[in-house]
Amino acid sequence: MRAVRVHEYNRPPSIDEVPDPKVSGPLDVLVEVNAAGVCRTDLHIIEGQWAPKTGVELPYTIGHENAGTVLEAGPAVTNVQAGDTVILHPLVTCGLCRACRGGDDVHCENSSFPGVNADGGMAQYLRTNARACVRLAEGLAPAQVAALADAGLTAYHAVRKARPLLYPGTHVVVIGAGGLGHIGLQTLVALTPAEITVVERSEEALRLASDLGAHHTVRADGTQVDAVRDVTGGKGAHVVLDFVGENGTESDGVAMTRDAGSYFVIGYGGSVEIPTIDIISREINVVGNLVGSYNDLDELMVLAAQDKVRLKTATYPLDDALDALNDLDNGRLPGGRAILEPVRR
Amino acid sequence: MRAVRVHEYNRPPSIDEVPDPKVSGPLDVLVEVNAAGVCRTDLHIIEGQWAPKTGVELPYTIGHENAGTVLEAGPAVTNVQAGDTVILHPLVTCGLCRACRGGDDVHCENSSFPGVNADGGMAQYLRTNARACVRLAEGLAPAQVAALADAGLTAYHAVRKARPLLYPGTHVVVIGAGGLGHIGLQTLVALTPAEITVVERSEEALRLASDLGAHHTVRADGTQVDAVRDVTGGKGAHVVLDFVGENGTESDGVAMTRDAGSYFVIGYGGSVEIPTIDIISREINVVGNLVGSYNDLDELMVLAAQDKVRLKTATYPLDDALDALNDLDNGRLPGGRAILEPVRR
Amino acid sequence: MRAVRVHEYNRPPSIDEVPDPKVSGPLDVLVEVNAAGVCRTDLHIIEGQWAPKTGVELPYTIGHENAGTVLEAGPAVTNVQAGDTVILHPLVTCGLCRACRGGDDVHCENSSFPGVNADGGMAQYLRTNARACVRLAEGLAPAQVAALADAGLTAYHAVRKARPLLYPGTHVVVIGAGGLGHIGLQTLVALTPAEITVVERSEEALRLASDLGAHHTVRADGTQVDAVRDVTGGKGAHVVLDFVGENGTESDGVAMTRDAGSYFVIGYGGSVEIPTIDIISREINVVGNLVGSYNDLDELMVLAAQDKVRLKTATYPLDDALDALNDLDNGRLPGGRAILEPVRR
Amino acid sequence: MRAVRVHEYNRPPSIDEVPDPKVSGPLDVLVEVNAAGVCRTDLHIIEGQWAPKTGVELPYTIGHENAGTVLEAGPAVTNVQAGDTVILHPLVTCGLCRACRGGDDVHCENSSFPGVNADGGMAQYLRTNARACVRLAEGLAPAQVAALADAGLTAYHAVRKARPLLYPGTHVVVIGAGGLGHIGLQTLVALTPAEITVVERSEEALRLASDLGAHHTVRADGTQVDAVRDVTGGKGAHVVLDFVGENGTESDGVAMTRDAGSYFVIGYGGSVEIPTIDIISREINVVGNLVGSYNDLDELMVLAAQDKVRLKTATYPLDDALDALNDLDNGRLPGGRAILEPVRR
Repeated sequence: MRAVRVHEYNRPPSIDEVPDPKVSGPLDVLVEVNAAGVCRTDLHIIEGQWAPKTGVELPYTIGHENAGTVLEAGPAVTNVQAGDTVILHPLVTCGLCRACRGGDDVHCENSSFPGVNADGGMAQYLRTNARACVRLAEGLAPAQVAALADAGLTAYHAVRKARPLLYPGTHVVVIGAGGLGHIGLQTLVALTPAEITVVERSEEALRLASDLGAHHTVRADGTQVDAVRDVTGGKGAHVVLDFVGENGTESDGVAMTRDAGSYFVIGYGGSVEIPTIDIISREINVVGNLVGSYNDLDELMVLAAQDKVRLKTATYPLDDALDALNDLDNGRLPGGRAILEPVRR
Repeated sequence: MRAVRVHEYNRPPSIDEVPDPKVSGPLDVLVEVNAAGVCRTDLHIIEGQWAPKTGVELPYTIGHENAGTVLEAGPAVTNVQAGDTVILHPLVTCGLCRACRGGDDVHCENSSFPGVNADGGMAQYLRTNARACVRLAEGLAPAQVAALADAGLTAYHAVRKARPLLYPGTHVVVIGAGGLGHIGLQTLVALTPAEITVVERSEEALRLASDLGAHHTVRADGTQVDAVRDVTGGKGAHVVLDFVGENGTESDGVAMTRDAGSYFVIGYGGSVEIPTIDIISREINVVGNLVGSYNDLDELMVLAAQDKVRLKTATYPLDDALDALNDLDNGRLPGGRAILEPVRR
Repeated sequence: MRAVRVHEYNRPPSIDEVPDPKVSGPLDVLVEVNAAGVCRTDLHIIEGQWAPKTGVELPYTIGHENAGTVLEAGPAVTNVQAGDTVILHPLVTCGLCRACRGGDDVHCENSSFPGVNADGGMAQYLRTNARACVRLAEGLAPAQVAALADAGLTAYHAVRKARPLLYPGTHVVVIGAGGLGHIGLQTLVALTPAEITVVERSEEALRLASDLGAHHTVRADGTQVDAVRDVTGGKGAHVVLDFVGENGTESDGVAMTRDAGSYFVIGYGGSVEIPTIDIISREINVVGNLVGSYNDLDELMVLAAQDKVRLKTATYPLDDALDALNDLDNGRLPGGRAILEPVRR
Repeated sequence: MRAVRVHEYNRPPSIDEVPDPKVSGPLDVLVEVNAAGVCRTDLHIIEGQWAPKTGVELPYTIGHENAGTVLEAGPAVTNVQAGDTVILHPLVTCGLCRACRGGDDVHCENSSFPGVNADGGMAQYLRTNARACVRLAEGLAPAQVAALADAGLTAYHAVRKARPLLYPGTHVVVIGAGGLGHIGLQTLVALTPAEITVVERSEEALRLASDLGAHHTVRADGTQVDAVRDVTGGKGAHVVLDFVGENGTESDGVAMTRDAGSYFVIGYGGSVEIPTIDIISREINVVGNLVGSYNDLDELMVLAAQDKVRLKTATYPLDDALDALNDLDNGRLPGGRAILEPVRR
């Protein structure tokens, strides 16, 4: 089969002919990849940023936002069968550790992460396991949802955790309305009655945010903390969701948070620095967020099927993967996601 | 192997020679049964009470509180290996449905219940699956904990659900301090700072309850509702745990519950009847409880290893299973549990 | 002032001239009543149904859904001042008991309930206290929201408690889409992404329910349990909100509840009867609901100001109170609420 | 009356004769101070550290950990009367804002803090309000509990928030077993079944910690992070309670926290600095903690009455206040608290 493979860091991947993966373990599932999202993390992988964390051996196939059609399932698989259309939870988990058993798949003690530390989905076929497969409802196409498998799931997970804090009369701030943020915004509209303020540098993204239901939009031009104070009656927001996590959003986010409120970190790159006297005298929380659970993804697919969460996408054949990566890297996909279609259906 | 099998309802089971079970599926685990608890549910099964619910085909092997030693594990099993000492969660679950994935094993959509609707553990060997196996800590012997697999787990689960309601200054009532109730009591002492009142017919069980940490004991002699009112300043308890669920404890339990409090149903046989005006004007809750999750059992094993939950047991060889059942039926095991030892270690 | 007073049970109240109430305690607030909702409970009070519970001395003034304008406030009142437009929480609470301090006003140990056990708001003026006053946002008129003070609050409170159980992919059933139920429905739409099924006898109420966002409507014609089973894939709903609580909805509601689900009792008149074996084998909950907290009412006013919760109302001068009571009693207010306007603004 | 008053920052306070305070508002309560805790915050106040935050006008009376006897109560006070023995919540709150109404007294929008920004309790008499008074159970003496009013309450509050995270099998670390930490430790023992590790510089404090129920003690000698890793199977603790919050405990605390775990900040002085990639890839939380609610204090008094939380104290007459402050400042109160007794009973 053909696959997008990294051979050397800081060099473009190449599209190689490699052997097809096979079902070997009893819980394995072989999926024909109909859609593979292209994500900023792919650029970071190619730059080698993840090498020290994953220790993955080169060459290998990238692609961690995958959806497609089940071709074959191992003998212990009971939840999907050949022909099913599926979106794949990004982790392949064991199902037997306490985390898996408690609904916290991401902290599985024995997981692999195809496309990050194992062969991924920018290829015609992908081997995953039964626990990763969410069957798609009628009417949901792989290309339409693939980018929800990781980016969307991460945004959904954070909002889902914040939901109990967001009742009528509360304020929530979304910092960054790009790939993750605009999914977070749609999820907020679907799950909470909170008053939503979106903070962004891009006027275009702010316009999109308004269309998607943001009640207030604030241009990140240096006055954003004051602007959020104004919107929130001088007190700050009950919840701040930071989808950027660098370049100053860390201190902005803390400053925008109301006393007894919570600052959710989702994006990364920078650093949170808060004097302990501020943490205690304001009694604020800093909440980490990492991907999401299988049940989170299942719930997100319900919202997608109800058309409450939508993505703008641009599709590419697998052989144009480098174009897709370049378009992403050069900001030629405003408000949208690049999706490879290794096998078109 | 030898096994205790029901051939006909309302007739004593017989101890038969049957073929050994074998590992067939990739997640199967074959366990040498070192200890099998004898439980009142076994008597009910023999009486045919469960027949309409389970539809199990006779003859079959009973025994649903099992602990032992792993003999063989299927190729997909990663959490135990031959030689491990284990206690078995009573259900064999799929791990793939939403309930399993959310930590709610008991509501698995594809489970079986060995000893109830499939061959159980009153036998030398038992086939279960990887998801049922909790490894025992050093120093915990199968005979010591087997009865915690179902009766103990059920009591633990109810207390675990009630825990958030039980903070300093609250009252909890335990109705029935028999097999389940005295585990519930020990769990309450371990997990909560609540003031505990035990209501029981048996003076001996009340003495044991005091030894185990009950702050108040009340004889169920017709004055029990008033006695609980007295103990609780006339208001009733924040939580009532009813381990009986028949013969009037249902109405007693509701009457002992404080306004805005919760009545937990654990035992069964009777019926809860409450006018809706009382449910709303008192804003009370009735909370059902069924067995417990794998993680519940895992936590209970921690308490057992810390010696915070203990059982009095009487052991019998497998061939004396009918004696054990008779002793239970005739009240010859006060405060203790009968444990068969099909294979002694 | 003029006031609607009950002199004898089972006789129509009369409209009397009585002395104006006065601020006496330091936390007292004197309110000019601009709107007083007419509620089915008023009919029950007149029939004497509440007499044994309240022990109120006749004659007295009814009216427990009140909104108006602050005329005078005692010296310890800091949250409102003369001229403020307010809606009144139905209870006058102490603020010092544990329930009040924990946000559970309804279970205040020292409360009174104007219109039920003390002089109420079907009068030109009403004495309440500071803790009962919620200031209305600009643009909300007393006549528009008065009926939310009790009926609306009760519906909101139940939905607010159910909210954590209602995530994407869940089902909720609303039994009864009358006065309370249609507020419950609007609140569900505002607070949850659940799939909503409304069960009702009246075709007209079902049409209104569809307009307000119900995803499915089911005629209560004897087939309603099966119909809900069909809508929910044969499993029943995660949450059933019973706004009727009599005439068979109690058993219907339990039957419509999914295993591990919750049946919320809000309406009353009948009786819940469930065998304990069903409560435990299905692990279901019965949840009582009583009015709501001050903070609940405050949140509901946010939804009202956002136009997410609306009421159809018919207004009457105070002197036409008997007409209003008759219209309610004779079903001449389909889908709407009668509101007295003792002092028009 | 006599009172300990700060006239100038960085100068010892003097003991002055000042007019007695009087009940003026309807909710005011006048308390004869029988015990006033001497706290490190008093030293910081004298040093002027709090001046910019409080803006309090000098001279004024310090003392924010107070217990005593009610002398007089305003006309709206219903929860205490002259002669009652009480401990005082440190804040005087309004009872009318959303925070107060939701049980979050500390975030009251209209509070004062006697001893910090208003005249406090190192005096013969103190004016507070009804909402601050917790009646003491029989057998609890003011001198025995006064130091629980602020230091103890703060520790209790943090543990109470952490409690849902601490079930059987979990690990909790207590950093710092001084004034607050050893109350936190006793509360952990009373409320949770978690395995407790105490990290401290002082061998003596570690010995006391063992006596109070710590399962492991770790000397803070530079190897403490590794030692905690060892105790927790290499994974870190589910919850870390940092009662120090400076001098490196901030980074230690984060390093001792397990993935998906929570680091609770209680002490202060330093700064928390965490790269956002660590916050998200480890999905950890940083949780601020500030004093505690009235209901928290009420619960803590239950534990004190049950002898589950105890303090070692050294008592001083009011006129020896400077000695008490000096003893605290110079470490002459190991493991104990200085308590002034302005009026002995």
